[in-house]
Amino acid sequence: MVGYAFMGAAHSQGWRTAGHVFDLPMRPVLAAICGRDADAVRAAADRHGWAAAETDWRRLIARDDVQVVDICTPGDSHAEIAIAALEAGKHVLCEKPLANSVAEAEAMVRAAADARSRGQLAMVGFNYRRVPAISYARKLIAEGRLGTLRHVRVTYLQDWLADPAAPLTWRLKREHAGSGALGDLGAHIVDLAQFLTGERLVGVSALAETFVKERPVLSGASAGLSGTAGTETGPVTVDDAALFTGRLASGALASFEATRMASGRKNALHLEINGERGSLAFDLERLNELSFHDHTEPAPSSGFRRILVTEPEHPYLEAWWPPGHALGYEHTFVHQARDLVEAVAAGTDPVPSFADGLQVQRVLAAVEDSAAKNAVYTPVPQP
Amino acid sequence: MVGYAFMGAAHSQGWRTAGHVFDLPMRPVLAAICGRDADAVRAAADRHGWAAAETDWRRLIARDDVQVVDICTPGDSHAEIAIAALEAGKHVLCEKPLANSVAEAEAMVRAAADARSRGQLAMVGFNYRRVPAISYARKLIAEGRLGTLRHVRVTYLQDWLADPAAPLTWRLKREHAGSGALGDLGAHIVDLAQFLTGERLVGVSALAETFVKERPVLSGASAGLSGTAGTETGPVTVDDAALFTGRLASGALASFEATRMASGRKNALHLEINGERGSLAFDLERLNELSFHDHTEPAPSSGFRRILVTEPEHPYLEAWWPPGHALGYEHTFVHQARDLVEAVAAGTDPVPSFADGLQVQRVLAAVEDSAAKNAVYTPVPQP
Amino acid sequence: MVGYAFMGAAHSQGWRTAGHVFDLPMRPVLAAICGRDADAVRAAADRHGWAAAETDWRRLIARDDVQVVDICTPGDSHAEIAIAALEAGKHVLCEKPLANSVAEAEAMVRAAADARSRGQLAMVGFNYRRVPAISYARKLIAEGRLGTLRHVRVTYLQDWLADPAAPLTWRLKREHAGSGALGDLGAHIVDLAQFLTGERLVGVSALAETFVKERPVLSGASAGLSGTAGTETGPVTVDDAALFTGRLASGALASFEATRMASGRKNALHLEINGERGSLAFDLERLNELSFHDHTEPAPSSGFRRILVTEPEHPYLEAWWPPGHALGYEHTFVHQARDLVEAVAAGTDPVPSFADGLQVQRVLAAVEDSAAKNAVYTPVPQP
Amino acid sequence: MVGYAFMGAAHSQGWRTAGHVFDLPMRPVLAAICGRDADAVRAAADRHGWAAAETDWRRLIARDDVQVVDICTPGDSHAEIAIAALEAGKHVLCEKPLANSVAEAEAMVRAAADARSRGQLAMVGFNYRRVPAISYARKLIAEGRLGTLRHVRVTYLQDWLADPAAPLTWRLKREHAGSGALGDLGAHIVDLAQFLTGERLVGVSALAETFVKERPVLSGASAGLSGTAGTETGPVTVDDAALFTGRLASGALASFEATRMASGRKNALHLEINGERGSLAFDLERLNELSFHDHTEPAPSSGFRRILVTEPEHPYLEAWWPPGHALGYEHTFVHQARDLVEAVAAGTDPVPSFADGLQVQRVLAAVEDSAAKNAVYTPVPQP
Repeated sequence: MVGYAFMGAAHSQGWRTAGHVFDLPMRPVLAAICGRDADAVRAAADRHGWAAAETDWRRLIARDDVQVVDICTPGDSHAEIAIAALEAGKHVLCEKPLANSVAEAEAMVRAAADARSRGQLAMVGFNYRRVPAISYARKLIAEGRLGTLRHVRVTYLQDWLADPAAPLTWRLKREHAGSGALGDLGAHIVDLAQFLTGERLVGVSALAETFVKERPVLSGASAGLSGTAGTETGPVTVDDAALFTGRLASGALASFEATRMASGRKNALHLEINGERGSLAFDLERLNELSFHDHTEPAPSSGFRRILVTEPEHPYLEAWWPPGHALGYEHTFVHQARDLVEAVAAGTDPVPSFADGLQVQRVLAAVEDSAAKNAVYTPVPQP
Repeated sequence: MVGYAFMGAAHSQGWRTAGHVFDLPMRPVLAAICGRDADAVRAAADRHGWAAAETDWRRLIARDDVQVVDICTPGDSHAEIAIAALEAGKHVLCEKPLANSVAEAEAMVRAAADARSRGQLAMVGFNYRRVPAISYARKLIAEGRLGTLRHVRVTYLQDWLADPAAPLTWRLKREHAGSGALGDLGAHIVDLAQFLTGERLVGVSALAETFVKERPVLSGASAGLSGTAGTETGPVTVDDAALFTGRLASGALASFEATRMASGRKNALHLEINGERGSLAFDLERLNELSFHDHTEPAPSSGFRRILVTEPEHPYLEAWWPPGHALGYEHTFVHQARDLVEAVAAGTDPVPSFADGLQVQRVLAAVEDSAAKNAVYTPVPQP
Repeated sequence: MVGYAFMGAAHSQGWRTAGHVFDLPMRPVLAAICGRDADAVRAAADRHGWAAAETDWRRLIARDDVQVVDICTPGDSHAEIAIAALEAGKHVLCEKPLANSVAEAEAMVRAAADARSRGQLAMVGFNYRRVPAISYARKLIAEGRLGTLRHVRVTYLQDWLADPAAPLTWRLKREHAGSGALGDLGAHIVDLAQFLTGERLVGVSALAETFVKERPVLSGASAGLSGTAGTETGPVTVDDAALFTGRLASGALASFEATRMASGRKNALHLEINGERGSLAFDLERLNELSFHDHTEPAPSSGFRRILVTEPEHPYLEAWWPPGHALGYEHTFVHQARDLVEAVAAGTDPVPSFADGLQVQRVLAAVEDSAAKNAVYTPVPQP
Repeated sequence: MVGYAFMGAAHSQGWRTAGHVFDLPMRPVLAAICGRDADAVRAAADRHGWAAAETDWRRLIARDDVQVVDICTPGDSHAEIAIAALEAGKHVLCEKPLANSVAEAEAMVRAAADARSRGQLAMVGFNYRRVPAISYARKLIAEGRLGTLRHVRVTYLQDWLADPAAPLTWRLKREHAGSGALGDLGAHIVDLAQFLTGERLVGVSALAETFVKERPVLSGASAGLSGTAGTETGPVTVDDAALFTGRLASGALASFEATRMASGRKNALHLEINGERGSLAFDLERLNELSFHDHTEPAPSSGFRRILVTEPEHPYLEAWWPPGHALGYEHTFVHQARDLVEAVAAGTDPVPSFADGLQVQRVLAAVEDSAAKNAVYTPVPQP
């Protein structure tokens, strides 16, 4: 694994746990973790249960005891590491967004295709697909329980930048993060909208905004990754919020909002999908629940039902606890690890693929283009 | 009162009740109601408690015992009746949307200005401003409890057209209704967004769609106002749904969605406003509640609080029931009647004014223009 | 009508409105209202729309233009007025609780039976039966949608006595109110439990408590009905809270809690009923909603559904607004007026009858007996 | 660890994870797991990550590499194993309920006291105390944010026995399980009520019921622990549901309900506590949330606030994910492992102690006594 911050910890928990919960054909071994700071990565290896620590990702991917490379770094390094790892004969799991640009993502898809012919797999880490309620929602839609789709609306609201005094971290710099709320949060909701509907966005119209244009600079040697904020300020070069609408291939309308300025909303990914025969709603802050309305029922006794997605028949649940016993955020990474291990063992293609990641990237690029032109409707190039 | 369908019944309930609940300087008398069908209007007068019935609105506005004309007809007749009533020396209350076009609305504003100089008042019926929770929300925002605003999002979802077999009523014909979900539902949410924030929209970008393009024609003599659906179909000439984004004068971003195709959503006007110091959320299906997050509180004990807006200190509540005893939809019309009576007695300008109605009309026109050009950002003309 | 405080206002709204909303065989006329203070009752008559005002209820029930006597006074006068009114040949609607003692209630039931033979009707005002969601819940249970019942739990929480400085009104004196939270709130929840299940309680076990034993006395001439609190205090002679469990005739277990000390709960009547085939839940603070779980559905897609009880097929709704448009607290009184008028016109027995009111009184007496003996299981005498 | 079923899996996850998430003074090593069936326990060891497998718990507690014995067996074996383990010089963690009788629990407390003098620790596994929201609720109450307490109500509703065809497992036999819903669910809610309030129950009144008196017997050799149900039936010898009320030391009233027959409720532990200055509410199915009402705030802007208990300042949260990222059920076992490891390292007494477990047992025994005498108020012996 490359990277050991928030995502590194979450992925580690996934890898450590999957084999103890699910019946896996192979059990993951946490071989080595990589980071630039030798002391810090050694501590992270110890904390998270990795056998070895490396300070150069090139050394990591050269190791014989590494079969899967899990990339948890900021987006600007995804392409280079992923392509090298694939070329080195490893399977690759790459955190979302796949890359910071369409061009990088395209190169990654090409590398993945080449590697596939050699039997290697590549997967992008849209972990929310593996919330059981989301996975079950996809099943209901695929079965036609919603009929023809009319509306998709997804908002992803956080508030950690609501305070203008919040510091200027790497996530607020275009050169590292690629974009702001759009790439970080927007990538998730675009993927979910397309995954759940089984359709692609064909065009978008967007507004974006950086409400707080200057923030306090972090002092410290390590490129703004940590440190304390001083009186100096620097420019925020990514969006604080992005608002976009679009059309799906079937003609359904979609609306999206991603922001880090919605005070009081911590991780509020809300989605709703309306079809001719039914509707679904979901709230990530209550991730064990799915709301489902069956419009084919008699009106007087119908209504949105709150399904507790904790039954053994629900996706991933056969291995967990009895009904009503909640799962949490990190379980998505356990499920991700399980699915990738199973794909590796079976030699099948994991989803979401790098191509899926590229498609999301194309949507995000179209959103950026549209926002730059003040909401002009911008087609999303289709493969 | 002109018109005696849904809105006529609701307004009648407002006029009948206001004087029995509030201490009013004058008590409304239900003098006369007007409709084209003599038997039907006679029955409506009897049902709703009006002393007289008229079949020609020109006769109604000529009556000496009529001081206020309340217009509850489809939008295409608003301008003609309102202007005539003002010219006849009456105060006017006109249902929303003010008119079917900006030009009509402008003429109405001019007529209202002329009438004002003669002491007459004109008010447009955006009744949701008078839900106590909305009125209280406005108070919190005006007091600065939310600080600088960042986001406004309002959706108004209904589902009575989700079924493609729903018939082609006057509300689906452009010549009568002006527009579809946009004018019917969108007018409310544009007004609420501007009322609550105290700001105007300066530009919008919109997508609109008519998902079901043909619907069964109603047979029957009375211009499609009622009757039974046959096998013949006719074209739907208004939008089923409109999705738009925009910018407020302060730079805050706004998003809107109005639809009649969201299966399972009956009258789901949800709104949320995020500011630097706090956030508010509201759901019309739970209209006695307001969610408020105070971002200046210590994070560990903060969160969206569910305020039951039923305390005597809340707007309009001093006259109703003890805390926790719910009000309903129709109470907005009681409050509207109270406020207009008080304005008439005091000679003050009621809100929302015809000018406010015109401003909403200008936003809706900009939305239609933008939708016609596939989401091009369209400035809203400012007064 | 006798009495013109909170209940008087609510009943007046019911009588004024019923004939304008429902198709009634007879339209109620608000003939005369009665209270002891001549000026106050004259003002109340004017405010609430009653033609005449009386200061002696004996004169009221002697009036020829009065056919129905509606009793909205404190419980200690119910028996005397109701019996006299029935003897005077009037139909009677009496607010709950029917009386302050079982003996009084028995006398009232006897008077009602005598009057019935002369064609007069008697009804007790458990208005919450006429919340559409409650009425619909009864229908679902009666149809067997819940199967064999196992559990009923009902809590009715208010907080207006949470503050020890709240004054000593008539509601806190045994001689006027009979009991405290038990008679005021407990009467409602006992009635609802029995109404919804269609069963009677056969025995109860109770704890009751007066947490604040002394409160400030109100000064003022009119028997503590209003005035300002001074430094003098007096003893609270009723319960602040009552907690009881019981068994229904079918063997189902029931639990109840009534309190005025639950800070933050304004009018929180929550109920849940669990049966072998399904469950229902309801919250009076969201009175347009009913939660229903159908246990016969496949587990993965089942869950409590939130039914918006605003469809035209729902009880009482055919006369009100379109789906999703909320009703409020006072609508229960409109429905009560409608049902009594229809019963009078048809000569049928209205429910709940005085006998139903007596049955509730017997349960409350058993609860008081049990509480006095520290929770000893106390059978409820069956008729 | 002794036992490897549901609780065994959950505890294993706790032991495996604690050292990788929290900074612990010692890192737990999963030395050996024990069960009667050699193949099954070997498989469980492999699955859950235990180094060795034992088939006799006496051998397990004799192992030198075992310092802590974690007992996850049915209640009838708790006392014997725990006492032996303490005598063997081990620290002990014992699942709740501490024992199947007060006498057993008393013996365990004595053994724990003896062991304490030798430096050994004993803890009982009321894991729900370690839900962060519960732990934070305790903090708010301890700080006086609720003032004098008036009411505690806790219900724990499940539905896995709602179907009369559900089979007769060990949990339905008195000789193994001690009691039914009472010991299984009631133990949790009694502990939570006492933990949160910091008070003890002084007396209780109870009703209990076995609704389904015969259930299908499981065939199979292993003492009814698994197998398939046939046509033969056997008697259920424990309660399906228990309903009880009580008084806390301060005079507050408490109500409890534990049932496995509430169709649609999966793991619905709801609790509410009302005090003079505020109230708290919690729902285990939404375990990342705590509802808090501050009654000292101005009424118009007050209300129950939904606190997302995912901030770094909240108990246990400093080690987990960013705000808004949900934890799940199993995290309680990670926290339990952390707290026990820290106590072992520091030589301090872990809570809840065996004495706390005994106190809960005394309450449950009083409940059973009261239920046997049809709700007679039964004092709880105080230490």
